[in-house]
Amino acid sequence: MERMSISVAVSGASGYAGGEVLRLLSTHPDVTIGAIAAHSSAGSRLGEVQPHLHSLADRIIEETSTDNLTGHDVVFLALPHGASAEVAAQLPDDVLVIDAGADHRLEDADTWQRFYGSAHAGTWPYGLPELPGAREALRGARRIAVPGCYPTSALLALTPGFTAGLLQPDDVVIVSASGASGAGKAQKTHLLGSEMMGGMSPYGVGGGHRHTPEIEQGLGWAAGTPVTVSFTPTLAPMARGILTTATARVIAGTTAAQLREAWEAAYDDEPFVTLLPDGQWPATKSVLGSNTAQLQLAFDEHAGRVIISCAIDNLTKGTAGGAVQSMNIALGLPETTGLTGSGVAP
Amino acid sequence: MERMSISVAVSGASGYAGGEVLRLLSTHPDVTIGAIAAHSSAGSRLGEVQPHLHSLADRIIEETSTDNLTGHDVVFLALPHGASAEVAAQLPDDVLVIDAGADHRLEDADTWQRFYGSAHAGTWPYGLPELPGAREALRGARRIAVPGCYPTSALLALTPGFTAGLLQPDDVVIVSASGASGAGKAQKTHLLGSEMMGGMSPYGVGGGHRHTPEIEQGLGWAAGTPVTVSFTPTLAPMARGILTTATARVIAGTTAAQLREAWEAAYDDEPFVTLLPDGQWPATKSVLGSNTAQLQLAFDEHAGRVIISCAIDNLTKGTAGGAVQSMNIALGLPETTGLTGSGVAP
Amino acid sequence: MERMSISVAVSGASGYAGGEVLRLLSTHPDVTIGAIAAHSSAGSRLGEVQPHLHSLADRIIEETSTDNLTGHDVVFLALPHGASAEVAAQLPDDVLVIDAGADHRLEDADTWQRFYGSAHAGTWPYGLPELPGAREALRGARRIAVPGCYPTSALLALTPGFTAGLLQPDDVVIVSASGASGAGKAQKTHLLGSEMMGGMSPYGVGGGHRHTPEIEQGLGWAAGTPVTVSFTPTLAPMARGILTTATARVIAGTTAAQLREAWEAAYDDEPFVTLLPDGQWPATKSVLGSNTAQLQLAFDEHAGRVIISCAIDNLTKGTAGGAVQSMNIALGLPETTGLTGSGVAP
Amino acid sequence: MERMSISVAVSGASGYAGGEVLRLLSTHPDVTIGAIAAHSSAGSRLGEVQPHLHSLADRIIEETSTDNLTGHDVVFLALPHGASAEVAAQLPDDVLVIDAGADHRLEDADTWQRFYGSAHAGTWPYGLPELPGAREALRGARRIAVPGCYPTSALLALTPGFTAGLLQPDDVVIVSASGASGAGKAQKTHLLGSEMMGGMSPYGVGGGHRHTPEIEQGLGWAAGTPVTVSFTPTLAPMARGILTTATARVIAGTTAAQLREAWEAAYDDEPFVTLLPDGQWPATKSVLGSNTAQLQLAFDEHAGRVIISCAIDNLTKGTAGGAVQSMNIALGLPETTGLTGSGVAP
Repeated sequence: MERMSISVAVSGASGYAGGEVLRLLSTHPDVTIGAIAAHSSAGSRLGEVQPHLHSLADRIIEETSTDNLTGHDVVFLALPHGASAEVAAQLPDDVLVIDAGADHRLEDADTWQRFYGSAHAGTWPYGLPELPGAREALRGARRIAVPGCYPTSALLALTPGFTAGLLQPDDVVIVSASGASGAGKAQKTHLLGSEMMGGMSPYGVGGGHRHTPEIEQGLGWAAGTPVTVSFTPTLAPMARGILTTATARVIAGTTAAQLREAWEAAYDDEPFVTLLPDGQWPATKSVLGSNTAQLQLAFDEHAGRVIISCAIDNLTKGTAGGAVQSMNIALGLPETTGLTGSGVAP
Repeated sequence: MERMSISVAVSGASGYAGGEVLRLLSTHPDVTIGAIAAHSSAGSRLGEVQPHLHSLADRIIEETSTDNLTGHDVVFLALPHGASAEVAAQLPDDVLVIDAGADHRLEDADTWQRFYGSAHAGTWPYGLPELPGAREALRGARRIAVPGCYPTSALLALTPGFTAGLLQPDDVVIVSASGASGAGKAQKTHLLGSEMMGGMSPYGVGGGHRHTPEIEQGLGWAAGTPVTVSFTPTLAPMARGILTTATARVIAGTTAAQLREAWEAAYDDEPFVTLLPDGQWPATKSVLGSNTAQLQLAFDEHAGRVIISCAIDNLTKGTAGGAVQSMNIALGLPETTGLTGSGVAP
Repeated sequence: MERMSISVAVSGASGYAGGEVLRLLSTHPDVTIGAIAAHSSAGSRLGEVQPHLHSLADRIIEETSTDNLTGHDVVFLALPHGASAEVAAQLPDDVLVIDAGADHRLEDADTWQRFYGSAHAGTWPYGLPELPGAREALRGARRIAVPGCYPTSALLALTPGFTAGLLQPDDVVIVSASGASGAGKAQKTHLLGSEMMGGMSPYGVGGGHRHTPEIEQGLGWAAGTPVTVSFTPTLAPMARGILTTATARVIAGTTAAQLREAWEAAYDDEPFVTLLPDGQWPATKSVLGSNTAQLQLAFDEHAGRVIISCAIDNLTKGTAGGAVQSMNIALGLPETTGLTGSGVAP
Repeated sequence: MERMSISVAVSGASGYAGGEVLRLLSTHPDVTIGAIAAHSSAGSRLGEVQPHLHSLADRIIEETSTDNLTGHDVVFLALPHGASAEVAAQLPDDVLVIDAGADHRLEDADTWQRFYGSAHAGTWPYGLPELPGAREALRGARRIAVPGCYPTSALLALTPGFTAGLLQPDDVVIVSASGASGAGKAQKTHLLGSEMMGGMSPYGVGGGHRHTPEIEQGLGWAAGTPVTVSFTPTLAPMARGILTTATARVIAGTTAAQLREAWEAAYDDEPFVTLLPDGQWPATKSVLGSNTAQLQLAFDEHAGRVIISCAIDNLTKGTAGGAVQSMNIALGLPETTGLTGSGVAP
């Protein structure tokens, strides 16, 4: 079979998300990597900034500009929020633009403004193919908003229960632990190795994290009614990975079997979501570098809550892997092309 | 001032809890360490088994036996559950016996049997001095049950809100992350460094963890009514520390100021509980090796929940530090003797 | 092009080396994975034992037996030392047997016996293709001894200097830091997460490590004369990776330029060895999960020594990746098939 | 006994070294902590910057100025190199000034200038009491230069062999692994948690590290002749700790027993140096937060080298603990006052 040759540009190539996009694209059989663009590191060898990308080490990072990004079939944007709308506006409509940032995730302009403080850039098809109806919206799409990493884990954890009508929408509690790369390459004291190694701490507690409205939006799609979420993110001493513990009150009369069936029905045919056998629990190590989400659930009848545990790699399934998976769908490629489901463990 | 000289024996000296008891006692100014006892390592130099205890390195570990433990003023038991009742029964009533294990924590014999599967050994005064009324019960006590590490963090997090009548008792959700030492020195594959470093996973999900009834018992004391808890423990890639995220629904009409006042009232005079200034969040690194619990709270009005974050060192405040603090109270020593509130950081 | 379909069996599939072999083979385009065999876990789903290998999770682990291993084109042995000779003897001569264990690495029977204490099983072609002459020996080979992980890093670090005649053979000093997976899945106290996280320690100091004679043997091939090595391995708080610091006295009159040229000449065309640009130093994170060895060197004229730093992933280039690379050569496949040079970072 | 009350000021209190000085002083029974000074964080609560120092949390950080530092019996300087000379010059001669920085360690002005690029500030008594003659020089001293962290470990490792005349001075090789705190609180990309966790890398290879001349100077004192050192530092994924592997060629005819006796003779009476029993190896975890140096040695007769392994906490024995120990000696206090030899482990 003749392979397609899709020309792809990556903007924001010096950050962790951009680096992961490049890592995945560098072994994607249908892709040719065109412009590699960034801002402050423009002019450097990629190998200086992303020393793990050996096959691309001698490529020179270009300035992020419309000129450099045009002429490609696909453009990935891994930019700080607020920056992608302007870039996207200058790219032709038939170019597939995949925004790994937050700009085009939220439907509600007021919510956007309250949490991000800038004007709303509009809403693009949501790149979480496992949500009901998401694949249809992604097929042929030319603009895709990649979900946030926490929302990816939270929505995969809870959506089947809401779709099946088994969960109460008014009191979802989610606590997530994320590796440091989720906070980006920012030079901040609390992200130093000395500060992080050997300890944990929460942040953005009390509803302030920008991913809260995105989680509520996605759960609302499944529930057909607004869902209220208490979300607490914590920073864990690991470079990668998210472990999300999501709990919701169960509609009275629901059985453990019904719960399990709902999740099985949702994920049995999904290539990148694994509902583990009873007794086995997700581990972020098991999905390191892979596009798999591992799930398990338990019904705590005493507390009246279902607890779902979900492990993903925040940079792969939570960002770049989800982005490539969505690209494959949009372009009509087999969905798993260029992606692996196996983690690098131990 | 002439210092007292209290003779202390430690049983279970080869484990992590026993090692931490010895570490703290070795610098306690009023204590003379007598018998150091253990089972499988009896006959070894302590330095082989606990190579960090340099001042005690040449002491020989004795067999755990009534003979070896008698003749001391205080006996610490850091034994597997089910083992301490028998040892304690053979020690005179006027010896202070401090059980760092689970045997004497639960009041309800049926609950004990359901979660531990053996006969109930009775209930001893609960060694968490910061709980209302606890100090009074500890003064002069000759039997003390040291709380579990997770319950220590959960009860310190939530008790002020229940005492003040601001929280609903029927839907508490707690998610905790613990370092590996909380699981003990057991040679199990999932506790290997290869498996733990760089990843997180949950365990005992859905109400099965033995600390759940202990948390519900302690919150019930404060609420004056049964409290229902959904508790999910997770294993984090660090040797020590617990970060607990505890949330409860707030009674309608409660304000953020009322919440903060309740916690301030409870802890302003406590030497080992620090309610952090607004905007600062607990970190397990900040309490490493110290007897401090760091707390912060936020009121998520949108979700109707208060979220309390609590960081402790599972082996210090969560086990051996709490035990020494309780010993000090029982013996009439200043409560902070031999304990430091400062963590070893970064 | 029609892809070949090579049937492969893996013995020792429950360990870390066996798991990594399976991870790499599961995405190798020319391979069909046949028997997956192990000993104590025979009968289990692979997903229980290697939860990161999602595509193989439902495969059942078979008993390691001649019956189960026969009928394949290639058999990988990831067994404890001393076990592979017997298995290999029962497999036909035209089956490619790749021994990831130590049994067939050493040429000298006396040395074998002194370090391993059992009878010498013979010597097989050495699976480190980057050594001079190694590829020729591997082409068409039907028995391959995969090098030890430390020797892989040490020989890649030092061989070019000895080949070029620039180094003195009598005083090589090597200090390596290895992640925990190098010690295998053994349930030993010092390998527990509690013991390893946050700390480092040496082991096998003073010439006792079994990889010392293997390093001396390989350097002797390059030098054409016996080479004496002081080798100290240390255990670092990470799951994977080896960072080797290798130093040798430089022959008088040698210049920094000559040294650099020797290493460039050796590795400029190698697909899996990267001599970094001046000023950039290897990092084990940059090669995590990849088959790349990163190298850098510095000439310390004051001390008269060249220092070479080499970073590999002990399980990939140091074990399973080197094994697959050697298999590719033996079978006449493109050498890089099924292997990636990019690490999973950060 | 009436305790002395020594007034102490700490400058550079916002960094890791300054924080560790404060941690140790806060439990030193003879010390009253006066001014706590820093530069960019002046005006903040100490609890914001050093959240682990609970007993000092409400102290306000003052500006580093002569005014603020005067009027104390002791002043600790934990400043960037080049900054302490000027401060010290303005303090009275009878104030004990302890410089935790590099400015006053080197005797040779040319060497200073070559490695640090600024004018030499002079040489102060060297605060490593375990070196021959060092205690005498420290008694009554009013200016003390605290050794670098790497030199502390390297000099403790090798000095006994040189003092005893058993080692060749011309080919010492040292490889050290340090935790991240050794690099300070600098906001640099390579020190981020994402970059450090799970990986190792070298730096300053080939003689460039500023601690190389300091190590050579100290070994030269012991050998009575210049000693040449090849020193390679590496960065390990831990917050604290240094593991040094030091090797030297042994003078022909030296026996293993002679070597062991030399180290025993040097350290048997030292309160803070532990030569471990045969078969036990140092671990940085065993000395975390403690002032102990753990040592072990092996004679590799085959290679003609002795290998000494030394584990310290870079911030305690390697900086602040050594500083307090030296202060105790200078002021005539018992040398171990306010210092613990026990590590916080696991």
